Amino acid sequence: MNTVTLGIIGAGRIGRLHVDNLLSVPQVKIKAVSDVVVDHLQEWAASKGISVLTTNYQDLLADPEIDAVFICSPTSTHAQIIQEAARAKKHIFCEKPVSFSAEQTIEALRVVEEEGVQLQVGFNRRFDPNFKKVRDLVQQGEVGQPHILKITSRDPQPPSVDYILTSGGLFMDMMIHDFDMARYVMNSEVVEVSAQGAVLVDPAIGEAGDIDTAIVTLKFANGAIGVIDNSRQAVYGYDQRVEVFGAKGAATADNCRPTTVEVSTVEGVVKDKPLYFFLERYTQAYIEEVTQFAKTILAGEKALCTGNDGLQAERIAKAAKESFLAGCPVKIEHETVTAQ
Amino acid sequence: MNTVTLGIIGAGRIGRLHVDNLLSVPQVKIKAVSDVVVDHLQEWAASKGISVLTTNYQDLLADPEIDAVFICSPTSTHAQIIQEAARAKKHIFCEKPVSFSAEQTIEALRVVEEEGVQLQVGFNRRFDPNFKKVRDLVQQGEVGQPHILKITSRDPQPPSVDYILTSGGLFMDMMIHDFDMARYVMNSEVVEVSAQGAVLVDPAIGEAGDIDTAIVTLKFANGAIGVIDNSRQAVYGYDQRVEVFGAKGAATADNCRPTTVEVSTVEGVVKDKPLYFFLERYTQAYIEEVTQFAKTILAGEKALCTGNDGLQAERIAKAAKESFLAGCPVKIEHETVTAQ
Amino acid sequence: MNTVTLGIIGAGRIGRLHVDNLLSVPQVKIKAVSDVVVDHLQEWAASKGISVLTTNYQDLLADPEIDAVFICSPTSTHAQIIQEAARAKKHIFCEKPVSFSAEQTIEALRVVEEEGVQLQVGFNRRFDPNFKKVRDLVQQGEVGQPHILKITSRDPQPPSVDYILTSGGLFMDMMIHDFDMARYVMNSEVVEVSAQGAVLVDPAIGEAGDIDTAIVTLKFANGAIGVIDNSRQAVYGYDQRVEVFGAKGAATADNCRPTTVEVSTVEGVVKDKPLYFFLERYTQAYIEEVTQFAKTILAGEKALCTGNDGLQAERIAKAAKESFLAGCPVKIEHETVTAQ
Amino acid sequence: MNTVTLGIIGAGRIGRLHVDNLLSVPQVKIKAVSDVVVDHLQEWAASKGISVLTTNYQDLLADPEIDAVFICSPTSTHAQIIQEAARAKKHIFCEKPVSFSAEQTIEALRVVEEEGVQLQVGFNRRFDPNFKKVRDLVQQGEVGQPHILKITSRDPQPPSVDYILTSGGLFMDMMIHDFDMARYVMNSEVVEVSAQGAVLVDPAIGEAGDIDTAIVTLKFANGAIGVIDNSRQAVYGYDQRVEVFGAKGAATADNCRPTTVEVSTVEGVVKDKPLYFFLERYTQAYIEEVTQFAKTILAGEKALCTGNDGLQAERIAKAAKESFLAGCPVKIEHETVTAQ
Repeated sequence: MNTVTLGIIGAGRIGRLHVDNLLSVPQVKIKAVSDVVVDHLQEWAASKGISVLTTNYQDLLADPEIDAVFICSPTSTHAQIIQEAARAKKHIFCEKPVSFSAEQTIEALRVVEEEGVQLQVGFNRRFDPNFKKVRDLVQQGEVGQPHILKITSRDPQPPSVDYILTSGGLFMDMMIHDFDMARYVMNSEVVEVSAQGAVLVDPAIGEAGDIDTAIVTLKFANGAIGVIDNSRQAVYGYDQRVEVFGAKGAATADNCRPTTVEVSTVEGVVKDKPLYFFLERYTQAYIEEVTQFAKTILAGEKALCTGNDGLQAERIAKAAKESFLAGCPVKIEHETVTAQ
Repeated sequence: MNTVTLGIIGAGRIGRLHVDNLLSVPQVKIKAVSDVVVDHLQEWAASKGISVLTTNYQDLLADPEIDAVFICSPTSTHAQIIQEAARAKKHIFCEKPVSFSAEQTIEALRVVEEEGVQLQVGFNRRFDPNFKKVRDLVQQGEVGQPHILKITSRDPQPPSVDYILTSGGLFMDMMIHDFDMARYVMNSEVVEVSAQGAVLVDPAIGEAGDIDTAIVTLKFANGAIGVIDNSRQAVYGYDQRVEVFGAKGAATADNCRPTTVEVSTVEGVVKDKPLYFFLERYTQAYIEEVTQFAKTILAGEKALCTGNDGLQAERIAKAAKESFLAGCPVKIEHETVTAQ
Repeated sequence: MNTVTLGIIGAGRIGRLHVDNLLSVPQVKIKAVSDVVVDHLQEWAASKGISVLTTNYQDLLADPEIDAVFICSPTSTHAQIIQEAARAKKHIFCEKPVSFSAEQTIEALRVVEEEGVQLQVGFNRRFDPNFKKVRDLVQQGEVGQPHILKITSRDPQPPSVDYILTSGGLFMDMMIHDFDMARYVMNSEVVEVSAQGAVLVDPAIGEAGDIDTAIVTLKFANGAIGVIDNSRQAVYGYDQRVEVFGAKGAATADNCRPTTVEVSTVEGVVKDKPLYFFLERYTQAYIEEVTQFAKTILAGEKALCTGNDGLQAERIAKAAKESFLAGCPVKIEHETVTAQ
Repeated sequence: MNTVTLGIIGAGRIGRLHVDNLLSVPQVKIKAVSDVVVDHLQEWAASKGISVLTTNYQDLLADPEIDAVFICSPTSTHAQIIQEAARAKKHIFCEKPVSFSAEQTIEALRVVEEEGVQLQVGFNRRFDPNFKKVRDLVQQGEVGQPHILKITSRDPQPPSVDYILTSGGLFMDMMIHDFDMARYVMNSEVVEVSAQGAVLVDPAIGEAGDIDTAIVTLKFANGAIGVIDNSRQAVYGYDQRVEVFGAKGAATADNCRPTTVEVSTVEGVVKDKPLYFFLERYTQAYIEEVTQFAKTILAGEKALCTGNDGLQAERIAKAAKESFLAGCPVKIEHETVTAQ
């Protein structure tokens, strides 16, 4: 196999983003796209050279030319489609989270394992060159044994309340990225979480049953401790920082900015705000993510962000929510699903 | 009164540091120094123009020329000496902490209140221009309503185990500075703490019954949340950073470095490590601290860091230790001692 | 016209780079490529969807479907091909410099003017977002009337002596980019130059009759003064900085780095070196450059970097060389060629 | 000799600054101050513990207790007083420049040499820890053989036109510091200068016969080249930067700022402007300068910034002015006055 032929399930914002990025990956051919409504997508699909457009994702699973599918449909459909795709012997790229329920996720991963297909979960930040460098430095021992992890992750503006109502809540929808980042850079499982949360950005978020500001402390299996802070609204832009502190030093990844320009006037010295949001900040990460998916499929290798990675992040998110509600720390069992 | 005549009780490292700084304060005259042993101090005292050297601090309290005393003796003696000094109508500068016991501290503050003298507690970091600017920006509303506070505070190397044994432990000895900083920059009381701690730097610290690495989350009366991380050993130097994030933005104070020099070679681009430790980092803060003490005494004004500030920081430290031992959050009552 | 159909003349490193970038520009179709030898290019052209491959660039000029050509052949051929392409009514993108002789360049621009086609010269750095922002700030008056311009431009390693022998020398080959940048950010003509040069990197460069290190001061028509420094070898990477200082402040564009990661250890605090060389540093600028070419052609607008811009930069480079050889400042007439 | 007893000649701004700094130097005693008018200085001198106040500086030279004098009187008097002080066997600290005439300076240095006293010239910036580190790095070979020197030196606001009329002009009054810095960090003599100048800040400066903006290129005896830019008005504060680029890398000293605080809002990310002017920027350098003077006198060692250093900087300044007026480069003979 020289090329991976793909089907895309779900052509919303993230689905179309993946399509655009996949067009620049030489190892890939996009054959088909499915969505619940496709009429408005005809021109778009044609301009991308996509020959099949269907409302039934099972058409993609039934197509023997298709090697792998991207699951970009709503979270509630992920677990079911993963199982069907695996049974159809398709490799799978699935957006995060795999599901809102550990049981569903585990069941889906079992089928993936049984069928021997690859599953990559869409934690795009792992492919950001800044965070990847922090991880590499930690792995190479440059900071010594890790002692403290710090992650700051703040969105530039909150999503709509409608979105929040079906999002699974801040821990499952937003901080789940940071839980995965924590496991990724520390290369160790999270064994306990303790969550603080508040509604400080918008009371409507509180009325919707969610929080908009949170600090979660973590204990890792390797003995280290860590902390993540989240806000739904940093007015100065997307604030995405990671720091690992250890016995031999510290590695920090700071925000990325559109330019390096500084302006000095009588008012002060001003530099650019961070890149606005995930589309700007993680442009390169999104491209790298799908490129690596294609490469590992072609090479017959294991995905760089597996179903188990998805499961563990969900478990931490669920434990964080429990901790927040209970007002005390919650321990996490971290048994893994074998094959993934 | 144009000049404050001072007596210094305790001529250890911090006492002698204050003497050196006070010599550059024009509003001050140092008349006397007491310590448990003084023979080795004769030449030093003479070179500083100090005329009285005694082993009995009560000689200083009995001297009608002395307006104020600096209490730089061991913590265990603070509460007692504060009371005696207040009864003798001396204004008081006392090193932190006031005591290891809220009851003792409260009793001492009651006497201070009754006698109507001023008491300034030695939280030197309040006088650092970086942190003061963060506080001022917050007070002026530049970051809007505060949502998240982050303090990083890491020493370059751990103290001796002997020191640790009598230190009161990491929360009372080290993080107490950060608890005070939290109250100072947020201008709000801490109402709940949740502590994580570990022994990662040196097992001997654990054997001495203490920890060397900690993360503590805070809830403030104003609704904000915060987090402090401490380590007894940052091999790259004294890591002292503060960040306040709010509705309108964020203010961050970064580390100070000896020079601005950057060296670019084939190996990378290297800048200076942070200033090594508190003597280097807080040089200016220590001078400003004693200058402000003298100025407020002369002006008959309230101290800029009061006995109540000392008490509240101690309460938070105590609660943090309880939280660490209990493995769950601890709430803090924050009644204040009136006059202070 | 919805799409610009292109022919590429010259498929060396820069020609192939433009092809790759043009493939991501939706307004563009690449029909044909010519080079003096094409056998080794068959597979490459096929993979890019290029249908015509020829050793005769005049085939491209004779093709009525081709709207515009990219001239990426050796500098010595530029002026001649520009004229032929203009006579054939093709719009033109030409790599810098247009020629090594003002007379040849002027003659080429005259034909371009007569035929009414567009000519864009390949000063890619104008399309770098950092430098563009500096220019925009200057244009918007953010730094007030410009007083001082400073440009630092240092390559990571010198080219081969073979290259240097036919390069036209440091001023025409390397600093010409900075002369164009000077005119671009200052929006004013250079009226006098004074050059200092030295052979400090490699004696072989001196033996080839060139220099490898230079500082050139500039006087602008608007009264401002400026300075450019060049080195053929900055061992820490491609050093590309611009600063405009004026009555109301300064705007500076610093180097770009692969990541924002800083590593703090006992040795110091290390950040990334600048991006290695022009392919890494100006990735975005190269894409933007050809995108803007396509857009201005489609819109019937004037190129953003015209033949006159090419001519003026060449004149400054020539004057700088004269100044270096004569050891004194040289004035520059800046009559423009009208249509461009 | 354990202590250097000093007389201060001239109690203007810089004289009084030195007095304040000298009071913190334990190796020093200030006995006497002279100025042309002293009535207004009585209280000031008393507060500083200075016992002798006179209108006749020769009283200081005649006082056998005085070991050394600080010459802080107007430049026009320096050369004469140096000679008288040397004849009186006093060591000398003299503010820069030694004189406006090479002949006068050489004559003064000859007497200093004959009498065997030490003369330190007041180039305070040599004692700035940032620039000293750059020099040390260059000396230690960290950047390899130096190729390019860059100095930026811009004042926050121009002096009065009255001051400018007697200042000796921008090259002698302001850029002379940078000429000394150039020799200091490069450890090599300047053999040629080429000056560009303009009146861009204030036409009144031009009417006074001076310029307010300048760029001067330098050739060094070691083959390196360099450039200095000056402006009399950087509205954002005192801009003081040095960069040495060489075969193995570059060392840069950036501006110093009051705090490390950054404020991120919807408007941008703002940090402090540079420290306002020389009193703020060079506080530490001024103290170190006089401390080192006292130490070298006590140790019988050569001054760290000698009369010859003063002479060479003056020669470069004079050559720069000639170059500016003539519009072409000017070579500099750099014979040294032996003993200094």
